[in-house]
Amino acid sequence: MISRRRLAFPLFGLFFAAQAFAQGDAAAAGPKVEAPASVPQYGMFEAKISGLPAGTQNVGMIFNRQDAGTAKLIEGFRDGDIWRVRIMPMNRGKHEYTISADGNWSCRGNFEVTAPAPGMHGPVRVKNKYHFAHADGTPFYPVGTTCYAWLNQPESVRKQTVETLSKGYFNKIRFCIFPKHYVFNEKEPDLYPFLLKEGSEKEYDWDYTKPNPAYFARIDEAVETLGKLGIECDLILFHPYDKWGFSRMPAEANDFYLTYMAARYSAYANIWWSFANEYDILKDKTVDDWEHYAALIQEKDPYDHLRSIHNCVPFYDYTKPWITHCSIQRQDFYVCAELTDQYRRKYDKAVVLDEIQYEGDIPYMWGNIAGPELVRRFWEATVRGGYATHGETYVGHDGVLWWSHGGKLWGDSAPRLKFLKEILYQTPGFGLRHTNQEWDDDAACAEDDPDYLLFYFGRNQPKYRDFNRLDPNASYHVEVIDTWNMTIDDRGIMKGRFHLELPGKEFTAIRVVKVKDK
Amino acid sequence: MISRRRLAFPLFGLFFAAQAFAQGDAAAAGPKVEAPASVPQYGMFEAKISGLPAGTQNVGMIFNRQDAGTAKLIEGFRDGDIWRVRIMPMNRGKHEYTISADGNWSCRGNFEVTAPAPGMHGPVRVKNKYHFAHADGTPFYPVGTTCYAWLNQPESVRKQTVETLSKGYFNKIRFCIFPKHYVFNEKEPDLYPFLLKEGSEKEYDWDYTKPNPAYFARIDEAVETLGKLGIECDLILFHPYDKWGFSRMPAEANDFYLTYMAARYSAYANIWWSFANEYDILKDKTVDDWEHYAALIQEKDPYDHLRSIHNCVPFYDYTKPWITHCSIQRQDFYVCAELTDQYRRKYDKAVVLDEIQYEGDIPYMWGNIAGPELVRRFWEATVRGGYATHGETYVGHDGVLWWSHGGKLWGDSAPRLKFLKEILYQTPGFGLRHTNQEWDDDAACAEDDPDYLLFYFGRNQPKYRDFNRLDPNASYHVEVIDTWNMTIDDRGIMKGRFHLELPGKEFTAIRVVKVKDK
Repeated sequence: MISRRRLAFPLFGLFFAAQAFAQGDAAAAGPKVEAPASVPQYGMFEAKISGLPAGTQNVGMIFNRQDAGTAKLIEGFRDGDIWRVRIMPMNRGKHEYTISADGNWSCRGNFEVTAPAPGMHGPVRVKNKYHFAHADGTPFYPVGTTCYAWLNQPESVRKQTVETLSKGYFNKIRFCIFPKHYVFNEKEPDLYPFLLKEGSEKEYDWDYTKPNPAYFARIDEAVETLGKLGIECDLILFHPYDKWGFSRMPAEANDFYLTYMAARYSAYANIWWSFANEYDILKDKTVDDWEHYAALIQEKDPYDHLRSIHNCVPFYDYTKPWITHCSIQRQDFYVCAELTDQYRRKYDKAVVLDEIQYEGDIPYMWGNIAGPELVRRFWEATVRGGYATHGETYVGHDGVLWWSHGGKLWGDSAPRLKFLKEILYQTPGFGLRHTNQEWDDDAACAEDDPDYLLFYFGRNQPKYRDFNRLDPNASYHVEVIDTWNMTIDDRGIMKGRFHLELPGKEFTAIRVVKVKDK
Repeated sequence: MISRRRLAFPLFGLFFAAQAFAQGDAAAAGPKVEAPASVPQYGMFEAKISGLPAGTQNVGMIFNRQDAGTAKLIEGFRDGDIWRVRIMPMNRGKHEYTISADGNWSCRGNFEVTAPAPGMHGPVRVKNKYHFAHADGTPFYPVGTTCYAWLNQPESVRKQTVETLSKGYFNKIRFCIFPKHYVFNEKEPDLYPFLLKEGSEKEYDWDYTKPNPAYFARIDEAVETLGKLGIECDLILFHPYDKWGFSRMPAEANDFYLTYMAARYSAYANIWWSFANEYDILKDKTVDDWEHYAALIQEKDPYDHLRSIHNCVPFYDYTKPWITHCSIQRQDFYVCAELTDQYRRKYDKAVVLDEIQYEGDIPYMWGNIAGPELVRRFWEATVRGGYATHGETYVGHDGVLWWSHGGKLWGDSAPRLKFLKEILYQTPGFGLRHTNQEWDDDAACAEDDPDYLLFYFGRNQPKYRDFNRLDPNASYHVEVIDTWNMTIDDRGIMKGRFHLELPGKEFTAIRVVKVKDK
């Protein structure tokens, strides 16, 4: 069976032509293919083809697992003088492939898909409707951050960013493919995503058919490096903060760019597609445009990576079938995380609050809340069955602000978010949901199965609680969590109905887990 | 001209009869009147009439200022064996009066209304639609507190309450007329508002025509004492937390009670009428009932004291003409003060947020926020042109919780609220309103005239601000206020457009006042 993915040349013609050429010219001078003989599952198999004629328009690869008899067709992309075809093997075993170019050259080969590298679990998918898991079933609980333009910064800052990210605070990062022009972002980038039109003397007169190999090599390296750190890359395809024209490219350039992005990045397990940051500020793009972009990526991405789109003010219609999860910017300065469960009910999808004001001290309200408030919002989102994303905007560090440039973190929230991430990974299954568990007039609490409960009191500071609604015949393991000081106070086993003394301070949580074997 | 206030006996008949009796029997044994010869303006003139027949039904007083020729008719009330008639003189000068009983006894007298006692400014009225001022024009900026059942506590606690209140944290207090039965309020009061029916052996079998003189004497003393401290008493006429029947009295008992309350308390300058705490929990009272109660008080209160009604969940219809101001309990655990300006627009009246969760550590969310959060809510209400009310619910102090019992304060908010009150009293006129002043995406800011600005950043912590929209040719006096540490950092005079360094921490405000003479 041939997959429904389409190439720009006729499929059956290609296939027979490929065989003929490969048999006849295998040893002759001409195109050269470099490809590995083996690749781990969920890793990336890349074939590098050099020596193709300059006018080559399309390069593709058909591959199948020998014992399965299915075949998939993958588009390659031009990278300067060479072409690359990338796949992410989803199944172990012997695979064979045919690479061909414009229907007049092809070659065959094979590779072995081995066990995944340690920590590799494959791309993240929606699981349990409101939550996420990797392809191999391992749960993924997003605790994200944002460094919009970190790849447009000097090498020293990029290195520092990776070093910071290697500390394990976050498992997801949002960043832009295109450079960013905005407050605190007024320097020219050292590289641009496209080459200039040859011979043109106009400023920023890009040849949109020529992606800049160095620019995208940097993104490749970043995605790969972050993948090894267990970090998902939420790739922002368009954004409005632009002085170079990338937010207003012609329609055919947008299509080329998206096709290119799909061909180049789909084979990385750790990417998500974010169609826009603040789509509603991109005034010359219509909903039809966004729907078209989404359809194009859906068609071109063989692995069906997660897809969403991020607002400035009005939400995009998250009920659209192509949207895998909400990627929300708060619509209010005061409540957002508190609405997580409402958003879940409204959109019936996973809720990721990708912008809930950043920890920092810039003059703008979107970037100057204190660490405790940001951490509180994360916990509030968590016990309401959703996820949130960090950002940091402290001035006074040589103009390097994490939210856009990366670098170092100066705030207080990151270690607390790592602590929250650990708590999430200790939950029994795929996520939490909000429940009115113990008190009608109470803090949010959460559960995913009725025997696991996580209460969070935020800015409320009860000195005690009486648990009156648990199973009176059951035993519960009770822990009092100080979400700010990152301590877990084990209170031992309590019988069904009990009185619990609490510290009487803000940011307290309680974990109550039914003892199953007794 | 005779005021429209009605007595239960024929007016002209009374008037002539009174003259006749007074002239004929002045020296004879019989009713005795004690009344002062002078009273300060806005103070209370009380005539005490003893010796009236046991069956006396109505006692009233007509009085007028000699030089004005107007006359007002005031109802008295029975207080055990005696009767009292109380008035609050609103104008200085010589007054004459006639007191009469059931149309068959009367006597005449006169009194001089002198200058008000120091600090006495008369009853509070609505001013500038959204704000308040005393009768003499002095602005009143409410910074209230709540001690629902403080008058039902032992004397030692009541004394402590007054001592605490004497520290000047608050200028308004909400409390209930009837005792309260609720969590943390399970002791019997030492006194009840009504006497028991004579001869009845049933528990709580009240004679609703017989208010308990000792019970109301305590309230009198409290209102008077608090008046001397400059504290307005928001008297809660009904509430649902009842085990004695006072929330479910027969209709005629309710009318008698309200008439009695008006006769007894209207003459105190420092009272407001709060028809209910949580009217919506009083399930057997209908909107028609509340409207009737309001009409009755409006008819019986000669001084038109402020009137409102407080909700548990749904707001009462604050557009009703009898309601002078909103008396709101938050409808959400997260936002309330943030909605102050919306409430102003919706109801077109002064907004007092009488319940926005209390500082404390009880298990209930309505009573366990930390001090900084409560103070933040006050400031947020303030810069949005409204007012808020304090309450405190800390356990662990012999079961005495300020919110209900009074006593001592254990929290952090009270001194900060006093500081806010001082800031309010330094504003130029009658209140503040919300304005989008300097930044579109900004903290709330406030003004009442365009040359006075008060910015408040709450949980935002900007490190600096650039002021770009002020009059470039004007000078401004700029002060940076730490609302938590109660410091005012005088930054001197700044020219119209300026850069202002800020401390980069939560709870910062900025006061910017145009220099008028330069």
